[in-house]
Amino acid sequence: MKKKYLMAPGPTPVSPEVLLEMAQPIIHHRSPQFSEILAEVREGLKYLFQTKNEVLTLVATGTGGMEGSVSNLLAKGDKGLVVRGGKFGERWAQIISAYGLTPVNIDVEWGYGPDPGVIRDHLKKDSAIKAVYVQAHETSTGVKFPIQEIGAVVKEFSGVALVVDAISALGVYDIKTDDWGLDVVVSGSQKAMGLPPGLAFVSLSELALEMMARSDLPKFYFDFKKERKNLLENKGAYTSAVSLVFGLRKVLRDIKAEGLEVMFARHALLAKAARAAATALGLAMFPKDSPSETLTVFLAPEGMDAGKIVKILRDKHGVTVAGGQDALKGKIFRISHMGYVDRFDLITALSALEMTLMELGYKFEVGAGVKAAEEVFIGGAQ
Amino acid sequence: MKKKYLMAPGPTPVSPEVLLEMAQPIIHHRSPQFSEILAEVREGLKYLFQTKNEVLTLVATGTGGMEGSVSNLLAKGDKGLVVRGGKFGERWAQIISAYGLTPVNIDVEWGYGPDPGVIRDHLKKDSAIKAVYVQAHETSTGVKFPIQEIGAVVKEFSGVALVVDAISALGVYDIKTDDWGLDVVVSGSQKAMGLPPGLAFVSLSELALEMMARSDLPKFYFDFKKERKNLLENKGAYTSAVSLVFGLRKVLRDIKAEGLEVMFARHALLAKAARAAATALGLAMFPKDSPSETLTVFLAPEGMDAGKIVKILRDKHGVTVAGGQDALKGKIFRISHMGYVDRFDLITALSALEMTLMELGYKFEVGAGVKAAEEVFIGGAQ
Repeated sequence: MKKKYLMAPGPTPVSPEVLLEMAQPIIHHRSPQFSEILAEVREGLKYLFQTKNEVLTLVATGTGGMEGSVSNLLAKGDKGLVVRGGKFGERWAQIISAYGLTPVNIDVEWGYGPDPGVIRDHLKKDSAIKAVYVQAHETSTGVKFPIQEIGAVVKEFSGVALVVDAISALGVYDIKTDDWGLDVVVSGSQKAMGLPPGLAFVSLSELALEMMARSDLPKFYFDFKKERKNLLENKGAYTSAVSLVFGLRKVLRDIKAEGLEVMFARHALLAKAARAAATALGLAMFPKDSPSETLTVFLAPEGMDAGKIVKILRDKHGVTVAGGQDALKGKIFRISHMGYVDRFDLITALSALEMTLMELGYKFEVGAGVKAAEEVFIGGAQ
Repeated sequence: MKKKYLMAPGPTPVSPEVLLEMAQPIIHHRSPQFSEILAEVREGLKYLFQTKNEVLTLVATGTGGMEGSVSNLLAKGDKGLVVRGGKFGERWAQIISAYGLTPVNIDVEWGYGPDPGVIRDHLKKDSAIKAVYVQAHETSTGVKFPIQEIGAVVKEFSGVALVVDAISALGVYDIKTDDWGLDVVVSGSQKAMGLPPGLAFVSLSELALEMMARSDLPKFYFDFKKERKNLLENKGAYTSAVSLVFGLRKVLRDIKAEGLEVMFARHALLAKAARAAATALGLAMFPKDSPSETLTVFLAPEGMDAGKIVKILRDKHGVTVAGGQDALKGKIFRISHMGYVDRFDLITALSALEMTLMELGYKFEVGAGVKAAEEVFIGGAQ
């Protein structure tokens, strides 16, 4: 017998209740019964996204939602301003380039967030920039970007849209789509929502709709105008992923019942416990700016390969965490605590980490990580 | 208590065994465990597609696979030859136009299949045509297109690819991808495979790979080169739809165990029974050329709205069938018998149809449809 614990930043664990919900018999995607489900889901997504606007549900991973946010908003000759502070910032630039447009890149050292003032400088001097593409949370570095402040800056420039990849942020901590002036917010099913991978979500502001009306870039499957028109009639443009939508309805009901504030507090407490454990174990954390509540990014001890830690955790203890990507490969490991993850999942991961560090000969006070986490939980409001 | 019977041409019913398979705990899409599954799925798809080439698995509906077959194969200035013999032929033309290219349309009256000679004529006179886009089966009309003959014609023209939408054909009847020279075959999970919607599949020949190397159309999420490169390492380019892939592995194992010939014979027998029932009920069938084994397309009796038949079947009897699309709305209804549908599902649909026709005042020998189907089943080889 070997139990498995999934603590990577997506896909995240799916609860047995949601798995069973998705195991219902398939119904037709154009039936009145399914339209009712989509109508309920539409409202649930508005609550989660904190918006009065429509939120599209696409059959794709989050990257599909990101691509559509380029191909539907920009037009030939436009530029997109990109904050490149990690692997997913690079993806924005790659997508913009793939459409033959010029990404204007603000390169931010991995581990830091961007200075909103630099975004202002670029927008002031280059009126060809029609949209700003940014992460809410850079999953590759564990850094939260100052989205609210960036929203305020972008609002100084009429007709410029702010597009936020909140794939690993939405549902973890507060993202006020409308209040902060976020024109497009992209998310995915396999993160804080605790669904399997397969659905992308995209909220669209009034400005986004205006830009969609003038966009002349090629698109078909990710045609947001067509999707939105269908959504207003509680339909998908193409065949909806029926079983995932069954799960989505359940998850959105649960989120509504729990309430966003409680959901955010739950993630914040887990993050606090993970950080306390890191400190107690004498492990440094990678983020230099605002570490996120999504995951905790640990630097491997000096001279130790983080890849080894990840491998022992997985193969010996059944705990799946993520290593570092690209330049961070071998240097960091990332323990996610978003979605269907509770305090004892984190205790499990910390306990497995302690045993792994012992095996690798790292010197520390055994039990100190778990103890620090317990103390946070006991002191916590939850 | 009201049982539901899904007899529409996608999504089709999913077996309880497959639903439970998909209800397994999620695993990480980059784990060795998941790579093993993808390796098995790769082989299973080659068997189903009757190809030695790789078959991509995309997180999308079939339309995403269709779009990628345009954006990855064609280049600026190319033309695509399209057989427009129904709603899905129109989709090929719309996708090609969306990319700023010219579709050369062969318009075929709905209900008929194309003449392969006309394809030859177009290819002879227009060397800008680099690919032929065609359906294996037009789901909107129930007509099978002569793909083998079209394959032979297209092979006369070096460097021209044949792209086949086999979304509602693959697994229903014989499609010999390699033997017939089909360069790209597109399919989807929610048809004969009996999975929920959410996965598209695309096989790629050597010629397709060559065309992908020269294609300069914009693409990112549906980047076949990137997907194929990852597939060769048993990975997806982005996050795989883990739960659907669990189901896919199960379905491909079942298909291998049953064998393609038995699977095709099963579908052929159901189609034969449905056609015999139609004749016994005095109902004409819509297709003028080769009716498919995927579904049976009935013309509503003179003066009767097919939409009413569909509605009564669904609301009173719990049997979901499809009506007509666009110009055929109100004129036809379509009973699908592909995928996880057995003889008693068809008997159920025919029985419900008889009761519906009685209610609508149609004069016929009650019981004759079910009787004719039973006679086919008893005489059948299965």
